[in-house]
Amino acid sequence: MCELLGMSANVPTDIVFSFTGLMQRGGRTGPHKDGWGIAFYEGRGLRLFQDPVASCESEVAKMVQHYLIKSEVVIGHIRHANVGRVTLANTHPFTRELWGQYWCFAHNGQLSDFEPSGSFYRAVGETDSEAAFCDLLNRIRSDFPERVEAEALLPTLLAACRHYRSKGVFNCLLSNGEWLFSFCSTKLAQITRRAPFGPAQLKDAELTVDFQAETTPRDVVTVLATEPLTDNECWTIHEPGQWSLWRRGECVAQGRDAAC
Amino acid sequence: MCELLGMSANVPTDIVFSFTGLMQRGGRTGPHKDGWGIAFYEGRGLRLFQDPVASCESEVAKMVQHYLIKSEVVIGHIRHANVGRVTLANTHPFTRELWGQYWCFAHNGQLSDFEPSGSFYRAVGETDSEAAFCDLLNRIRSDFPERVEAEALLPTLLAACRHYRSKGVFNCLLSNGEWLFSFCSTKLAQITRRAPFGPAQLKDAELTVDFQAETTPRDVVTVLATEPLTDNECWTIHEPGQWSLWRRGECVAQGRDAAC
Repeated sequence: MCELLGMSANVPTDIVFSFTGLMQRGGRTGPHKDGWGIAFYEGRGLRLFQDPVASCESEVAKMVQHYLIKSEVVIGHIRHANVGRVTLANTHPFTRELWGQYWCFAHNGQLSDFEPSGSFYRAVGETDSEAAFCDLLNRIRSDFPERVEAEALLPTLLAACRHYRSKGVFNCLLSNGEWLFSFCSTKLAQITRRAPFGPAQLKDAELTVDFQAETTPRDVVTVLATEPLTDNECWTIHEPGQWSLWRRGECVAQGRDAAC
Repeated sequence: MCELLGMSANVPTDIVFSFTGLMQRGGRTGPHKDGWGIAFYEGRGLRLFQDPVASCESEVAKMVQHYLIKSEVVIGHIRHANVGRVTLANTHPFTRELWGQYWCFAHNGQLSDFEPSGSFYRAVGETDSEAAFCDLLNRIRSDFPERVEAEALLPTLLAACRHYRSKGVFNCLLSNGEWLFSFCSTKLAQITRRAPFGPAQLKDAELTVDFQAETTPRDVVTVLATEPLTDNECWTIHEPGQWSLWRRGECVAQGRDAAC
């Protein structure tokens, strides 16, 4: 059904370790072979790498693993297609500009009988996921023509997520580069790594990293993923309806949507 | 001042040869070391690779050269910064969604006292180039809320280009994936390769390609560049004010703007 990967950190951090684990699930240890994508914020810019092929076989994926791109906010996705053909235009994450910022979105799930509303943003591809993203941005833009803080956006975000969840399965990650928002309708896990750091062992590949050697005592790095990526750490499993808002690795707001 | 690269073809074509020549100008044979970018259309999707570092030193550029991405429409750019810092957000080409299509734009030149109008699209970075792109899309969207053919767009496009040119130097490439539009205010060159194909020798690198071995007799590939990329072929040099519209490698409309 796809898997999500997100990161929020207070220092530019490379996500190679988590990405390596996720990439194995794109065709080797998992069935998500219908494309992958990962987006890195760099200042106000957004760098997006995507390929509508299995991540475990993708040359672009290999390049990303070796390029050591560092970022404070990352959204990634590996796809197991249900709605929409396997094409570049149907590959997550999706991006749009709003308020002079690049917004980025990835979705795990499937929506039935979903009709996006509004016309500012339109889907280029055929997925329910991109349609939901456009609908979400149309709602935000309609309620807030000018930039607001994420906290002010929450009622609009949660009303939208509640609506999408009523149409099926809707786990998502959303960012505008300042913050990272997650919504869990069925499956999402999260870990926040801070000092004292220790070793982490991937579930899907023979790779262990000793984070103490890679970090300073002030670093805070939160990773969100559909399924825990390591087997020796304690991940927090989100409940259905649970949402969270992250800035620089820290959770600044969270809750559980009552309608779920 | 930057250099542009564009391609319109009737078959998916790899632009590695032209890109290799252009990349040398990004820090080796030329001064355009403040970033580079290249965008490839693939169906309705758009694949964008960018780096705010010198292309001749960029790991992402090396990957693009080896990945042999094939496309019918490509827009590329190497930057010599004048307005705006050297950051990812200030790196061309720029992209936005309009009419459910991805639009792509790159600019060579500098505009003074330019104030973009409209508010649908806003610049994320600080360049005059991105501001012009947003202004252009705002004009198009205002005149045409729904998709029209490029020919119907021409009056809007040319009025905009005329305005930008009155503010400075404005050479550009623009596409929505269906067609490629060029505007020359000072410098642009173009070559259309068709059967019988022959060898092409890059000016900036020791590389010759025999296109006859790479093509079929029906292929038509047009390349536009700020300066000719090869030294053994006959390039057409565009005049100030000259614009052209390309589909599948063929010029479907062109003219010379009277105000220039």
